[in-house]
Amino acid sequence: MFNHEIDVYLAHHVPLVRFMGIHLKCFDTQGLTLAAPLAPNINDKGTAFAGALAAIVTLSGWAVTYLTLRERHEKANLVIADSSIKYLRPVQEEIIAVCALPDEESVERFLATYQKRGKASWELEAIIQAGAATAVTFRGRYAAYRPV
Amino acid sequence: MFNHEIDVYLAHHVPLVRFMGIHLKCFDTQGLTLAAPLAPNINDKGTAFAGALAAIVTLSGWAVTYLTLRERHEKANLVIADSSIKYLRPVQEEIIAVCALPDEESVERFLATYQKRGKASWELEAIIQAGAATAVTFRGRYAAYRPV
Repeated sequence: MFNHEIDVYLAHHVPLVRFMGIHLKCFDTQGLTLAAPLAPNINDKGTAFAGALAAIVTLSGWAVTYLTLRERHEKANLVIADSSIKYLRPVQEEIIAVCALPDEESVERFLATYQKRGKASWELEAIIQAGAATAVTFRGRYAAYRPV
Repeated sequence: MFNHEIDVYLAHHVPLVRFMGIHLKCFDTQGLTLAAPLAPNINDKGTAFAGALAAIVTLSGWAVTYLTLRERHEKANLVIADSSIKYLRPVQEEIIAVCALPDEESVERFLATYQKRGKASWELEAIIQAGAATAVTFRGRYAAYRPV
C-alpha cells in the first residue's frame, strides 16, 4: 500500500523522479529499497551518472523519514540538512539504493521528539549496490518540521 | 567554444543532464558556472529537489576537472571519489552552481602530477546560489586517470 502511494506521489510531484524511473521496491523493519533502471541514468562511460547516484541515495533517506512518520499518521515538512557520499565503484546495472531503518529505540526517540516539539532530526545511512559489492556509501541528516 | 562543446557532449551522453536542462554559463580563471531551470528539477514543495541540487553541484566539479585537463589537451577518465554537501536553504528559482577553480599553483600541481603519473586527484569546492545567499555548499574529491 505504501509502495504505491509514495511512487504515485513522487512521480506526480517530482519530474526528475519520474524521468529517472525511481520506484520503491520495499519498506520494512530493515529499511527501504529504491530502484531505478540504468538507461535514463547513464553517463558518458556507460555506467550510472554520479549525479543520478547522489539523487537516488539522497531520496532514499527522505523516503525512510517520510514513511516512518506516515506510519504514525504524522505529516511533516522534510528537509535534508547535510550528507556525505563515497563513490567506491561504478554501477553498471539497475541502480539499487538501500537505506537502513535505525533501530527501534532510535525510531521511537525520533517520533517522540517530533510529536513533543514539532521538529526532529536524525542521521541515516544508505548504500548503493553493484551486484554483490557496495558501489556507494551515504550518510545523510534529515529534519522534519510540523507544517504551520 | 568550450561552452558549446561540453554542453553538446553532456546532452548527448548523459540523458539526465539533458532532462535537467543543465548548461554551462561560464568557465574562466575564477571557476565554472552551471545553470538549470527550476521546472524539470522541482520537488513536491515547489522548490528545487535536493537530488537535483546534488546532481548539478556534483557535475560542476566534474566539469571543472574536465575543462582544466581539456585546456592542456589532456584526455582522462574522471571519477568522483567522495563528496559532502550542506543544504542551507531552499532554491526557488533557476539553479546556479558555481565551482571555484583552485589557485594557479594547485592547478599546475594537479596537471603536473597527471602528466607524470597518469593519475591525479584534487578537492574542489562549489556552491549553489539562492538569490544573493548561498543555498548549498559542496566539497568533492575528483580523480583523473589516463585512459588505457
